[in-house]
Amino acid sequence: MSDTRRAVIAGPSGASELFQLLRDGNPHTRAELAELAGLARSTVGLRVDELLELGLIAPVGEAASSGGRPPSQFALNPGARIVLAVDCGASHQSVVLSDLSSTILASDLQLRPIADGPERVLQHVVETARALLASIGRNERDLVAAGIGLPGPVEHATGRAVRPPIMPGWDGFDVPGWMMDHLGIPALVDNDVNIMAIGERTIAFPEVDDLLFVKVATGIGSGIISGGSLQRGAQGTAGDLGHVRVARGDGVVCDCGNTGCLEAMASGPAIARQLRQQGIPAETAAEVLALVAEGNQAAIDAVHQAGRDIGEVLTTCVSLINPSVIVIGGSMAGAGEHLIAGIHDVVYARSMPIATSSLSIVLSSAGSTAGVIGASVLASEHALSPQGVDALLAG
Amino acid sequence: MSDTRRAVIAGPSGASELFQLLRDGNPHTRAELAELAGLARSTVGLRVDELLELGLIAPVGEAASSGGRPPSQFALNPGARIVLAVDCGASHQSVVLSDLSSTILASDLQLRPIADGPERVLQHVVETARALLASIGRNERDLVAAGIGLPGPVEHATGRAVRPPIMPGWDGFDVPGWMMDHLGIPALVDNDVNIMAIGERTIAFPEVDDLLFVKVATGIGSGIISGGSLQRGAQGTAGDLGHVRVARGDGVVCDCGNTGCLEAMASGPAIARQLRQQGIPAETAAEVLALVAEGNQAAIDAVHQAGRDIGEVLTTCVSLINPSVIVIGGSMAGAGEHLIAGIHDVVYARSMPIATSSLSIVLSSAGSTAGVIGASVLASEHALSPQGVDALLAG
Repeated sequence: MSDTRRAVIAGPSGASELFQLLRDGNPHTRAELAELAGLARSTVGLRVDELLELGLIAPVGEAASSGGRPPSQFALNPGARIVLAVDCGASHQSVVLSDLSSTILASDLQLRPIADGPERVLQHVVETARALLASIGRNERDLVAAGIGLPGPVEHATGRAVRPPIMPGWDGFDVPGWMMDHLGIPALVDNDVNIMAIGERTIAFPEVDDLLFVKVATGIGSGIISGGSLQRGAQGTAGDLGHVRVARGDGVVCDCGNTGCLEAMASGPAIARQLRQQGIPAETAAEVLALVAEGNQAAIDAVHQAGRDIGEVLTTCVSLINPSVIVIGGSMAGAGEHLIAGIHDVVYARSMPIATSSLSIVLSSAGSTAGVIGASVLASEHALSPQGVDALLAG
Repeated sequence: MSDTRRAVIAGPSGASELFQLLRDGNPHTRAELAELAGLARSTVGLRVDELLELGLIAPVGEAASSGGRPPSQFALNPGARIVLAVDCGASHQSVVLSDLSSTILASDLQLRPIADGPERVLQHVVETARALLASIGRNERDLVAAGIGLPGPVEHATGRAVRPPIMPGWDGFDVPGWMMDHLGIPALVDNDVNIMAIGERTIAFPEVDDLLFVKVATGIGSGIISGGSLQRGAQGTAGDLGHVRVARGDGVVCDCGNTGCLEAMASGPAIARQLRQQGIPAETAAEVLALVAEGNQAAIDAVHQAGRDIGEVLTTCVSLINPSVIVIGGSMAGAGEHLIAGIHDVVYARSMPIATSSLSIVLSSAGSTAGVIGASVLASEHALSPQGVDALLAG
């Protein structure tokens, strides 16, 4: 065996590097792969065999041959493995199995407070994952990674929540360690709005590199994709616009202790409170949405003004981040054009023309699946990375 | 010759890929490179010879040998090529030659308005570059790339200014095309505050991945480094915080036509105007700084209040971007602790504790060299990239 050939075989990630060329989803022949990789066909042949054996790639049709054995084409085989995707809200867990291209294979939604603590919530996730695997006739060996969204600040590198305000028991809890102990798979953990931003981009804006996803619900937060990458910031709190002060908010006290926070003015509960002050009974975002749907003018006006408050903060986001798309999601997005109109009014009046020249502000099209799709993308990206494929090759 | 060996030689960027391993600046032996690259020593030998011939790497000492020919060590040779770095302000051009590790070899600073237009300004840059090359005994063949900062929004991908307010004649001008025609080198063009952010990080915070550089001078702007990358946004206007509205600014009209912009409240000329309204003669940032240095209490108070206004906007930046370092630069940074104190007061009082738990707010240490160092880094990064090294190998 030549030195070169031995080095190729012994290379720490030769097959996983070749696999990166196949991740585009298009079929390739061995000859194309050899040219793309700058490697000899014999080398490519060995690596393709490894990936075929793992099932990560599969033959696709037959390319035209110039005689002799027809050169097969290969492509990513997204069904070869399964990822677990979890979106934990304040009071629900959405648990999904998907293939490696984020197509949902099975799903489950349950009401359960995140305040139950990590052990009980994650135990439920693991049990649900096993039941879902059984329901589609697959087993735990097919499961390669998990993506998990949590409703609070998360240090993505370690997968731990950091001083989350509504998650008692979770502060510093080692979610990836627990998942490795109980399911034997790596877990990628992120803030719930961050995974919604990734999911929305995957579903509706795959070509957009600068996207801001704003969740308006019980709280208000955002996920920032800039230059094609999710931006998490130094402590994982990037996008936390709920506690930015708005002009109208002087004197209104927020749960955080400060005054005038956007969340205290424009969240679902804040709008409900403003309606109660006018003698209109409303407690929750759902009740506000019901009033808007009935055509209640006070509710419509309150939602429009909330849009203007959100627009005030988004104007600053437009200056700072210069996105080309702002997506409004979360339960209050159910107020539709009434909310968007208020946002539009302020953002276009206040921003520099260059920054709004090609800016779209739209309602979420991914809706309630944005979170689990984003979590699935996080998990699949890891599974298909050189590191993830190396782990499959090794084990 | 084996298939593998032929493929390696014919590979489009074999040597430039190997070179990426040598960019870390550390010495490596052929054997180490073979292991790192997962390639045969014979292959590595051919590629090392190509890079030695170009001068991009050079032998460094001798590693301990296990007998026979001693295996040489190689490392990046930063002096092998030169880059041109230019920082254009509203009224000056700073032109510098540096080596590939951004060490400045020669420099020139001239007062010349950017409003002279691109042809005259760039002609001056080219003539200065030639004179500086002659002064250090190098020639144009050694020059491999240019980095250029401009005082307005720039579409980095095309190197063109986009509707810049203070740069008549520059809108849409093809700076890289002009530089290629006149000096035969690629040019990387960016906004002046963006290159200052890159320069400040290179000099003072090489380990920091989330840094906000704020320039406070005639205008106010910022450069955002998030997740280790400069963020430019969809139209190249990311970081444009000069026209964010501040609470104190109600009714104050900005040059942009809106009211209450940060720039209309806290820039050098804005502070001077506030002092004139108190009967204190001041026109420019320099005059304000002189008053502060003399201990003029009205000037000190005005600078402190400007710091509070800047702090109001930076509080939102902290929520949105979650940087670990905010650097204050530009001429008004000369007011030092008076400015920083105002910023501190507001940012720490208003931000969520998690976002400020490990946040530093400091004065620029790169000072007036931040821009040219950043421009040099942009140019060197390009020259040392696979694409840049391929160009050198091809021609």
